[in-house]
Amino acid sequence: MMQRTPGFPRDSEQELRVPIDALRQFVVGLLVHKGMFEAEARIAADRMVEADARGTYSHGTWALKRYLDAMDAGDIDPRAQVLTLREGPSTAALDGGNGLGHVAATRGMQLAIRKARETGVGAVTVVRGQHYGAASVYALLAARDGLIGLTTTNTGSPTVAGYGSRQALTANNALAWACPVRNGPPIVLDMAVGETSWGKIAAHRLYGLPIPEKWAWDAEGRSTTDPNAATTILPAAGARGFGLAVMCGVFSGVLAGGRFATQKKTSPFAAGSEHFFLALDPEHFTDRETYFDEIDRTIQAIRAAEPADGFDRVRVPGEPEAEHESQAVTEGIPLHRDHAAELAELAAAAGIEVPW
Amino acid sequence: MMQRTPGFPRDSEQELRVPIDALRQFVVGLLVHKGMFEAEARIAADRMVEADARGTYSHGTWALKRYLDAMDAGDIDPRAQVLTLREGPSTAALDGGNGLGHVAATRGMQLAIRKARETGVGAVTVVRGQHYGAASVYALLAARDGLIGLTTTNTGSPTVAGYGSRQALTANNALAWACPVRNGPPIVLDMAVGETSWGKIAAHRLYGLPIPEKWAWDAEGRSTTDPNAATTILPAAGARGFGLAVMCGVFSGVLAGGRFATQKKTSPFAAGSEHFFLALDPEHFTDRETYFDEIDRTIQAIRAAEPADGFDRVRVPGEPEAEHESQAVTEGIPLHRDHAAELAELAAAAGIEVPW
Repeated sequence: MMQRTPGFPRDSEQELRVPIDALRQFVVGLLVHKGMFEAEARIAADRMVEADARGTYSHGTWALKRYLDAMDAGDIDPRAQVLTLREGPSTAALDGGNGLGHVAATRGMQLAIRKARETGVGAVTVVRGQHYGAASVYALLAARDGLIGLTTTNTGSPTVAGYGSRQALTANNALAWACPVRNGPPIVLDMAVGETSWGKIAAHRLYGLPIPEKWAWDAEGRSTTDPNAATTILPAAGARGFGLAVMCGVFSGVLAGGRFATQKKTSPFAAGSEHFFLALDPEHFTDRETYFDEIDRTIQAIRAAEPADGFDRVRVPGEPEAEHESQAVTEGIPLHRDHAAELAELAAAAGIEVPW
Repeated sequence: MMQRTPGFPRDSEQELRVPIDALRQFVVGLLVHKGMFEAEARIAADRMVEADARGTYSHGTWALKRYLDAMDAGDIDPRAQVLTLREGPSTAALDGGNGLGHVAATRGMQLAIRKARETGVGAVTVVRGQHYGAASVYALLAARDGLIGLTTTNTGSPTVAGYGSRQALTANNALAWACPVRNGPPIVLDMAVGETSWGKIAAHRLYGLPIPEKWAWDAEGRSTTDPNAATTILPAAGARGFGLAVMCGVFSGVLAGGRFATQKKTSPFAAGSEHFFLALDPEHFTDRETYFDEIDRTIQAIRAAEPADGFDRVRVPGEPEAEHESQAVTEGIPLHRDHAAELAELAAAAGIEVPW
């Protein structure tokens, strides 16, 4: 089998396909049913369904049940207002009011984009932001507007081991960046700081597969291949993954006025999440055409490279996800049957029809 | 043996110790002998000797011979002037004029710091910057001034394999960040995007040790443990290291108006390097004391964690290097005898006395 999105199993016999627009409208219905304004529900649905379309299910609608449960528990406020705490020509600090994370995060990146258009750079933090889903979709907001976008997030309490430690010391913080391309999809990196993500571990559980060695420890600190026994993820590339994890925690968490993972002892939604957004306008640094010409040459050079064993061709970062999205646009988003069944249960409880 | 800076061998019997000030003055002498102004030679010597003091020899004075050779070859201009190409309240694009990289890079980060003090964020690129040594020392300039600093660099032609490729597609670009701490040394991450650095491979050669498996390939694309046979480094954590490598290449190289590694075919100094500097002032996002309190709590929590086997205690990112620096301040910088001998040869050619 040719390897595309590494670490995510796929099996079309266990999946069904749902049109993008229908899934989006379905998510809007579930969120509005919890009391969200439709305009904000649409923003959140756009981000979640884009994550699904790109194959990042764990950070798309698969997380929806947890969001709705957190609304029921009072940890996510469906009617939260996003407040501006501090603002300058190139910076802003927002308070997401513990609303659904995607709404304040989208505002955060959009504000960074506006500031970057005016001053060349925009840096925006969001405190009390809650889980914002897939980091890539925010970086993409900037790249589709012709800007370089970067985002990091500081999620819940520790689940990733510190380097040189037996203990989890950081959350599996995410870092994403995207850069605009003259034609075709932006170049995108969306990475967690651990050797893997909880979403990939859950996907292995869903597809009934063991996880690779060196991804995670069990509760006794032993390496495990059982997705059900994994309790602590190892930091990617040792000291580097740990260093990046702390970096994300400082840029998004501490800078935003929030807490670092080691000071988050409660459940993820009770503890909240914080985010950082950066947008850069290439025109403030070089000529736009010079920038695009060099990006074009880079993409061509990467694609022309000789593939390693097990790969059909060499892809630029984010290209496998863009291929997944392109196929989802024409054929619908493939959802695992258990994932679809869980969404159907949510719909039944809300009295909403499923679009499949 | 307790593991501190991972991947760097040490053996005190092969080393001699040189006082920091003496080494700095020695470097100034060598650079002034090539025609640099003393004020600029001091800037470069500060950065290089700080890298040595932190144990990052490969990016400190060990690289000096290559810089001096590049001056002789006409690739580095000792009398280059740093020009401002574009400037706004929060951004600037500098042209380093192919001078010794440390000079324009120091100006770049200092300018980012000044802009961040005024507007909360400063983003500065440097094109025609040349190799700037250790990335960490620029991030540290910001952190020692109470700001969060980040830098990436786009060095020479490809030496690190692309993910899914048999070919080298990126340089071993570096990414460093540092955050200010109320008391004590800043938290610092300084990482390359490959599984290892050419400096670590050279250090293994210097100490007569094999390199670990999965660090590098030989010319035939086979995994090798021979530091002399290594020609291509593997990307750290596969797709993530490659994604970060491309990110660094875009943020520092393409954004600055320079070329991506795949378009650099000549020798590193003929092809030049480009850099990116970002500084953020926490006060524009949250209260300074809130920020420092949370950083203090984070450091305490990390240091209090239970160490894994082979570690005496858990350290925050950058702490091993700060320990090395602290010892170097009191006892002098330990230099490998071959490294010292090479510096002595340079001194002899310039008619300068060695301080050991």
